Amino acid sequence: MKVAVLGFGTVGVGVYEMLQHAQGLEAGPVLVRPGKDDAPFKVTTIEQIVQDPSVGAVAEVMGGVEPAFSYGAAVLRAGKHFVTSNKALVAAKGIELNAIAREHGAAFLFSAACGGGVPFLHNLSIARESDEILSMGGILNGTTNYMLDAMQRLGLDYGDALKDAQRLGYAEADPRADVSGLDALRKIMLACAVAYDALPTEGLLNEGIESVTAADVAHFRSRGYTCRLLAKGSRAGGEKVSAYVEPVLLRDGAPECAVLANYNMASYEGKCSGPIVLMGQGAGRYPTASAVLRDLGCILHGKHYMLQENCRLANADNSRNEHAYYVRLPAEHAAEIPAESAELDGDVVRIITKPVSVSQMHFMAERLRAAGVELFFAAIGG
Amino acid sequence: MKVAVLGFGTVGVGVYEMLQHAQGLEAGPVLVRPGKDDAPFKVTTIEQIVQDPSVGAVAEVMGGVEPAFSYGAAVLRAGKHFVTSNKALVAAKGIELNAIAREHGAAFLFSAACGGGVPFLHNLSIARESDEILSMGGILNGTTNYMLDAMQRLGLDYGDALKDAQRLGYAEADPRADVSGLDALRKIMLACAVAYDALPTEGLLNEGIESVTAADVAHFRSRGYTCRLLAKGSRAGGEKVSAYVEPVLLRDGAPECAVLANYNMASYEGKCSGPIVLMGQGAGRYPTASAVLRDLGCILHGKHYMLQENCRLANADNSRNEHAYYVRLPAEHAAEIPAESAELDGDVVRIITKPVSVSQMHFMAERLRAAGVELFFAAIGG
Repeated sequence: MKVAVLGFGTVGVGVYEMLQHAQGLEAGPVLVRPGKDDAPFKVTTIEQIVQDPSVGAVAEVMGGVEPAFSYGAAVLRAGKHFVTSNKALVAAKGIELNAIAREHGAAFLFSAACGGGVPFLHNLSIARESDEILSMGGILNGTTNYMLDAMQRLGLDYGDALKDAQRLGYAEADPRADVSGLDALRKIMLACAVAYDALPTEGLLNEGIESVTAADVAHFRSRGYTCRLLAKGSRAGGEKVSAYVEPVLLRDGAPECAVLANYNMASYEGKCSGPIVLMGQGAGRYPTASAVLRDLGCILHGKHYMLQENCRLANADNSRNEHAYYVRLPAEHAAEIPAESAELDGDVVRIITKPVSVSQMHFMAERLRAAGVELFFAAIGG
Repeated sequence: MKVAVLGFGTVGVGVYEMLQHAQGLEAGPVLVRPGKDDAPFKVTTIEQIVQDPSVGAVAEVMGGVEPAFSYGAAVLRAGKHFVTSNKALVAAKGIELNAIAREHGAAFLFSAACGGGVPFLHNLSIARESDEILSMGGILNGTTNYMLDAMQRLGLDYGDALKDAQRLGYAEADPRADVSGLDALRKIMLACAVAYDALPTEGLLNEGIESVTAADVAHFRSRGYTCRLLAKGSRAGGEKVSAYVEPVLLRDGAPECAVLANYNMASYEGKCSGPIVLMGQGAGRYPTASAVLRDLGCILHGKHYMLQENCRLANADNSRNEHAYYVRLPAEHAAEIPAESAELDGDVVRIITKPVSVSQMHFMAERLRAAGVELFFAAIGG
């Protein structure tokens, strides 16, 4: 099967190279910007790919919703299989692309869009057909894991950890999608769509790591905790799902604590299988390309979809998940948090809350920040 | 697709139950011993399944090479797909079953035979088609992991750890296949067949945990090491592969140290993907059944084989992998081990060796034991 590639950046080059050696696959034309077509295999218009009868599948690795969506829709309507690593595209347009693909008998797979090299969505989409997925989640953003790990193991403060991540190519010049938790949130949205036929678009909550300080991390260490940014998804009754991202404090020895640097760990718990954990590199040229290639290999074997035919948009409801939180905020605002215990540390107070719902905690923080209060919070985990 | 089940023990019951709820699958007849056919869905001869045109696939969960092989060959020759959880069967007869399956256009999958609920072979078989598998291995036996974990965390000695494992149903009445490392060895043999088209049958090495003592474990703890029984496989040049099982001492914080109780962890390192780690329950009714069901789901999607057409029997060569070992033996035999350092402890000596090859270490231990010397050894790992 000849595969066209849309985009020739970091991942696109990796996909093109891997296609040279993959069983049953060969490299087709590569779509680049006008002026970048410095080799015969490069083309500059999507029509050259849509109208090429020798192209059986298209791998999109450009990023962004447009023109990726228009291109994907066009190749699917031409009956060509479509594989993408683009989480923003699938979070915004996955339902539509799935419908167009099924209408035209073409495949639509996006394993690389969640977990990079980690084959999470692939395994989830198979498991859900014979097992009940009770919950899922994990460390789905390598940039923030690198930063939290560097703050813990090297003692860096937030700014230096971010600079290091940028220097190593783990963080973008504009790191907001990563550090705010939005990137991880998009990935758990895709997992909900795969596992529960519900792509949540409303009621989602994401707390990132932008407020964590070196003093917070030192405090966690002194208590035997490691901080990780975790995404979580589960059913929330009826048509709703729970889907949120927040920092979590884990007891040393928990599997998540062994996830170092920019690695990802994704897991699901099947009613029959029990917990299944997958770990690997969540980003980078070859890890991400390897996920694209695995999807293309699955198409050769006849697996065409990750989303069921009845997958639909849904609302998230995060009011049913309750746990205790660590909250650090100025001492004068201590009374605004339902505390189980509190510890004064100079002019800040470190509170362990009574169990509160995820939505209650995120809304409390939003309200306090709107009033100018600086705070950090993290769930107390396993 | 209607699925017949061969065997109605622990796993067979789980498969039969899961078939009631799985997408695109339904439960067919179940083969039981004569006299055990106490329900209409139970049959007592394989012919009743072979000759039933409504049966599309057969799941074998009886264990043992015969009659499982004869039954598998018969159903494959009738064009029915064949899925098994039986590692002894695939290690002994996998090449033959693969050839019969391909000749008759039927599927042959055995994900549940390695790692139980952990989808290791499935992912390995997909990854190897587009990536180069540099190495693989992991904790592939839950019984011994349970015992090592209990010795470390509860301070049990070997005998009590084994009794606990038997009481909890993790170890058989005859535990030799588990504690000798043979069970884990069979699993890495299957992984070599999947990844390298080479099922090794000669030159294999397995050191189990039968010689480890509470004093050894206490010594590891005092040095910040955790002991795990690891299987390892890689290419060894030409047509050969390296495949062996041995205890390994891992620095606290290594991902393997987070594998508790009877869990499994399997991993492979792809040249492009980097390391991919999978963790979950390696045995038990529903975890193993969930792996059988995933294989059946893959058949519905068109994936028919884990072994390539050219997969063949091969020799193992474990002479190229070198590392240092911990060796505990009677002090009077210290001179027989190439020591980097040695520590006298009563009448035993604890040696850290110079780097030696895996085959050299295993043969030294075999020679010493043949002379009546009691010893334990473990590789010094990451």
